[in-house]
Amino acid sequence: MTELSELHEAPAPSHAGLDVGNVDELHEAITAQDKTRIRELLDLDLEHPAELADRLEQLSHSDRKTLAELCPDVFSPALLAELEDDVVEDVLPLLSSRQISRAMEELESDDAVQLFEELSDEAREEVLEELPEQERREIEESLSFDEETAGRLMQREFVAAPEFWTVGQTIDHMREQGERGGDNLPEKFFDVYVIDAHFHPIGYVPLSTLMRSQRGTLLRDLMDTNLTVITPDMDQEDVAYLFEKYDLISAPVVDADGRLTGMITVDDMVEVIQEENTEDMLALAGVSEAGLVDTVADTVKARAPWLFVNLLTAMLASSVISLFQNEISQLVALAVLMPIVASMGGNTGTQALTVAI
Amino acid sequence: MTELSELHEAPAPSHAGLDVGNVDELHEAITAQDKTRIRELLDLDLEHPAELADRLEQLSHSDRKTLAELCPDVFSPALLAELEDDVVEDVLPLLSSRQISRAMEELESDDAVQLFEELSDEAREEVLEELPEQERREIEESLSFDEETAGRLMQREFVAAPEFWTVGQTIDHMREQGERGGDNLPEKFFDVYVIDAHFHPIGYVPLSTLMRSQRGTLLRDLMDTNLTVITPDMDQEDVAYLFEKYDLISAPVVDADGRLTGMITVDDMVEVIQEENTEDMLALAGVSEAGLVDTVADTVKARAPWLFVNLLTAMLASSVISLFQNEISQLVALAVLMPIVASMGGNTGTQALTVAI
Repeated sequence: MTELSELHEAPAPSHAGLDVGNVDELHEAITAQDKTRIRELLDLDLEHPAELADRLEQLSHSDRKTLAELCPDVFSPALLAELEDDVVEDVLPLLSSRQISRAMEELESDDAVQLFEELSDEAREEVLEELPEQERREIEESLSFDEETAGRLMQREFVAAPEFWTVGQTIDHMREQGERGGDNLPEKFFDVYVIDAHFHPIGYVPLSTLMRSQRGTLLRDLMDTNLTVITPDMDQEDVAYLFEKYDLISAPVVDADGRLTGMITVDDMVEVIQEENTEDMLALAGVSEAGLVDTVADTVKARAPWLFVNLLTAMLASSVISLFQNEISQLVALAVLMPIVASMGGNTGTQALTVAI
Repeated sequence: MTELSELHEAPAPSHAGLDVGNVDELHEAITAQDKTRIRELLDLDLEHPAELADRLEQLSHSDRKTLAELCPDVFSPALLAELEDDVVEDVLPLLSSRQISRAMEELESDDAVQLFEELSDEAREEVLEELPEQERREIEESLSFDEETAGRLMQREFVAAPEFWTVGQTIDHMREQGERGGDNLPEKFFDVYVIDAHFHPIGYVPLSTLMRSQRGTLLRDLMDTNLTVITPDMDQEDVAYLFEKYDLISAPVVDADGRLTGMITVDDMVEVIQEENTEDMLALAGVSEAGLVDTVADTVKARAPWLFVNLLTAMLASSVISLFQNEISQLVALAVLMPIVASMGGNTGTQALTVAI
């Protein structure tokens, strides 16, 4: 196991995301404004952004503010993409619009849109002005789709090739793009979409198939035509359903004319599935979303309405019962049975609702 | 949109998985033992196995039995991997152990184990005898890990290369494997694991990185050493957490000596996440899993225990109240307030439990 100890090992579930000791040290270093110590604790080159995000999520707002002033470069594009939505909302006002627009340029377009969504209206204006023409148009187009639809989730970077290309041509094309800085290639991709002359997707070739095929083979002969096509107005839950059903790793998104305009990858879907499941579960108990970072007031605000409705209905039930005060005083056994009826009714209802969801 | 109409388009959520008309026709064809019509309705070459599975899941047991007698080839390895667990359990006794062992040979090892798990004890013996030596040993080894652990989920097919190989060598190696029938390459893979002389994983190269790099580049210079390594005894929920946190597409599994023995891919994780979420949600309402295919008796059996416990506690509450019959008869208003107290208490409890989960 010695060789393995250098690797990023899977954390034990018990301390996953809650490495409190280190966070306390970090808090002290920030309070002392000790830049060197902060840099030591945040090993930006080696640490996975997801882990850095876990730690910054545990800092207080004022700590994050001091950190943004001392070392603004800690808030790298990769880190911003990993932070939870409400922490991003808290951090973005601390950064310059220049830094935010740079991050948006560097990120894939789906992550850029997610970042942009957390900006205040004024900040949005400023950041849009800093963006190059094309990026700005793309962001605006993405925002034109409803929240929680495929249009918001898709990235505009994908790899497409005509059906008459060979495996060799396709690989050479990608190498050439890679050499030129790879700006036109997505950071991660898993399938090459095969398109016809009208830019309509007609099939796909998984990279693993491309890898095991001879250079002379035509894409036409390799491609899987059983293609699941997503439209931008599709609800994210339906997209997740298709990914699960067909074991998809990525899927092409087409515009109203059926032309390829984007791609959705499975890692975004994993997030959506978790999100939708949490939503369903919270809705079942009548609690709206309240994260660990929320204050007591937020939590009370989130949970009170449902409890209040519950109080009203219970009072209504009581007032009905009070109409029968005389009868009850004659036959007290009735009152004794009341909790049984109420409890069984409520429980059966919850079970039915859960199974239906 | 005409070009698109030939493609497999995303189904509207309303009829997704419940295309009743077609299933009725299928039922009639099976009852009439009309092989030609059955073949017409089940277009095995064109239809996605996931869709075929959806339809067969809606048939009755006797229909499935007749179908297995008339056209056993309908139950292809790909279809068996897509069917829901309880339907697989229902279908397997209808197939010959020869057909089942063939399916297990053809499937990736993780799907083969899942199939094997649904067999009765006798059938397991028979099927194991039909399997080639190596496959049998692998199945037995997989079964030695607990259910719901990484060991059960992993597949034994993966792609590994030493760090001193170049991109060109790696691709040539894969092409050669592909030409020889590709038996040693997994059907789908997304990363090449880089190993040292002891077969310990020391990094990985995503296929998309391999694609955009020049043939002469060494894997050592390309690889990402920030590797998340899974051990076979890890709980599937913890594995899913790692996939979500680090946006993984695949992860290597190592044995006790740190040697690469398998791989877990994200499509299996999507299933696990759904499964675990459903479990959590059902547990919250005190309902154990009961699928759409279950009979009324199954459902009653699944839900009754919790309702019974609930009845007991309600009766306990009532008996406490009955101790105070005299007091209540003196002050009936007390009885009127009881539902308010009970209801608020129950609801607050459910909210707290849901948020904690």
